Amino acid sequence: MKLASLKSGRDGELVVVSRDLTRAVRVPQIATTLQQLMEDWDTNAPQLEDIYRRLNDGELDQAFELDHHSLQSPLPRTYHWADGSAYLNHVQLVRQARNAEMPETFWSDPLMYQGGGDRFIGPFDDIEAISEDHGIDFEGELAVITDDVPMATSPEQAAGHIKLIMLVNDVSLRGLIPGELAKGFGFFQAKPASSFSPVCVTPDELGEAWRDGRVHLPLTVHLNGEMFGAPEAGPDMIFSFPRLVAHAARTRHLGAGAVIGSGTVSNPDPDGGPGKPVADGGVGYSCLAEVRMVEKILHGDSTTPFMRFGDRVRIEMFDDGGHSIFGAIDQRVVKYTP
Amino acid sequence: MKLASLKSGRDGELVVVSRDLTRAVRVPQIATTLQQLMEDWDTNAPQLEDIYRRLNDGELDQAFELDHHSLQSPLPRTYHWADGSAYLNHVQLVRQARNAEMPETFWSDPLMYQGGGDRFIGPFDDIEAISEDHGIDFEGELAVITDDVPMATSPEQAAGHIKLIMLVNDVSLRGLIPGELAKGFGFFQAKPASSFSPVCVTPDELGEAWRDGRVHLPLTVHLNGEMFGAPEAGPDMIFSFPRLVAHAARTRHLGAGAVIGSGTVSNPDPDGGPGKPVADGGVGYSCLAEVRMVEKILHGDSTTPFMRFGDRVRIEMFDDGGHSIFGAIDQRVVKYTP
Repeated sequence: MKLASLKSGRDGELVVVSRDLTRAVRVPQIATTLQQLMEDWDTNAPQLEDIYRRLNDGELDQAFELDHHSLQSPLPRTYHWADGSAYLNHVQLVRQARNAEMPETFWSDPLMYQGGGDRFIGPFDDIEAISEDHGIDFEGELAVITDDVPMATSPEQAAGHIKLIMLVNDVSLRGLIPGELAKGFGFFQAKPASSFSPVCVTPDELGEAWRDGRVHLPLTVHLNGEMFGAPEAGPDMIFSFPRLVAHAARTRHLGAGAVIGSGTVSNPDPDGGPGKPVADGGVGYSCLAEVRMVEKILHGDSTTPFMRFGDRVRIEMFDDGGHSIFGAIDQRVVKYTP
Repeated sequence: MKLASLKSGRDGELVVVSRDLTRAVRVPQIATTLQQLMEDWDTNAPQLEDIYRRLNDGELDQAFELDHHSLQSPLPRTYHWADGSAYLNHVQLVRQARNAEMPETFWSDPLMYQGGGDRFIGPFDDIEAISEDHGIDFEGELAVITDDVPMATSPEQAAGHIKLIMLVNDVSLRGLIPGELAKGFGFFQAKPASSFSPVCVTPDELGEAWRDGRVHLPLTVHLNGEMFGAPEAGPDMIFSFPRLVAHAARTRHLGAGAVIGSGTVSNPDPDGGPGKPVADGGVGYSCLAEVRMVEKILHGDSTTPFMRFGDRVRIEMFDDGGHSIFGAIDQRVVKYTP
């Protein structure tokens, strides 16, 4: 089943979307918002699955053509947004670039930060920033949406709480990160509003690509219309989504609609190297920081700039048949003037 | 004006509460939840102020006697919960206890972490924890609730976005903090669900005690029925609430209903010492970590234990006439078994 939220108020209006992402239908008789659906998933999901089947079969007269620009992020806001950093290649590169060892415990204890969930950006909406000097970057990621997850849930139990999957652009202000991390309290200003793919999908939509609590497909990233990366999201995700959800729920209950992210998708080279750009035959990257770190490690200096006002990033994932699964995040950076 | 939320579903049911905290009235004709009120404050607040006046004057037949145990936290959940650490005496003590200097920038750049807002605990509800070994602690604080705050709002502008004030118990798991902070991403498992005072109030309810964006009154904390501290919340709050709100909004818009906390209220001694226990003639503390740090600094070792299952903490604030302003947070720690 595929779901999305039409732009409407603060929480959007829930629609069921056809598998090919071209048509949609409103479902007010079941739930008006995705948040409402998440709060009573077990009751509502079977009815929506039935509508989804009929929508795909062309049986619903009330279906309409879907303009992806009319969509908000699937959850336009959430009470819980936490982002892991499960691709340790990314973490190792960050550390290597500043000559710091990665602690051995990072292989067994996930990194995760709490983000702000009050005003997500729509998938085609501009990324507002007050200054290019903040080092504006994208981070291509995956995320899951859960129903209610009780405290101290095991990874095995957490798997059953993962109801929906989507893509994320975890917008990051790299210039603010060193100062914030040095203060010891983690990210805050360095992690402004994120955006999500137009459509979120149930795990069964991914078929064989959803296994071991991971999505085994490449994540495609374009920067200003040029291929920037297509790293594989599956094999190098050290902690599975069920593991990340269990980490988030270790000391507290998670409320329905909690969004848990994977962290920047990142692959090392097959020979263990730090990962090559697409132009050099590598799979590329899903954030600018990473190519900059590789440049620094290999050449002593970073030459690729961060995003400038007017730059665009496009993040998408295709199935083996080349069909877009979640629709695209496609955003431009603009200057925000108070 | 004083407001609260009756236990009802995930978001509670908004009530206007009398100044003396004994009576309340439902206001479904204006807003059914506090979140709904925050999203259209300018329209709704004047009508509620009128109801508040009539409630205090005994003019409302539909008013009922208010049992504080029937209340949730004013916002039972929120899309944005961020907690500052504006009482630098607390920060200095933490650092002093581990022989670390506090950076000079801490006096000009607020510390703030993003918390989870999806499932706050009610003011009289149990604090569930899975292990006493996690070092269960309370933190007595104040917090404000804002309406929509645009990105890059100045502190001067932020003052006008502060609509309500309340007390917080920022439950902390001290045993998990060193490991999490060492990872560099800030608190996560160490900051489980917080709780808030039964009632939140508009700044005018504080009269002269609300000035310079700070609450100039002592915060009273009892542990297992004994006075543990009554530190002054005003003078040692280095960053005012408007300053903290502006910090939170520097790189993103804050959605209506955002909750911004002050951090643990903490006073140094008048002579500049680290702050004495109540039994030694000091004002005491609003968290256990602080008395433990003082013990360590003065005697080389911490002797006061963290909270054990069955322990109670009570946090309250009184006006100059001895009347409770927000009602009390009064909670017991219990073992949670998955």
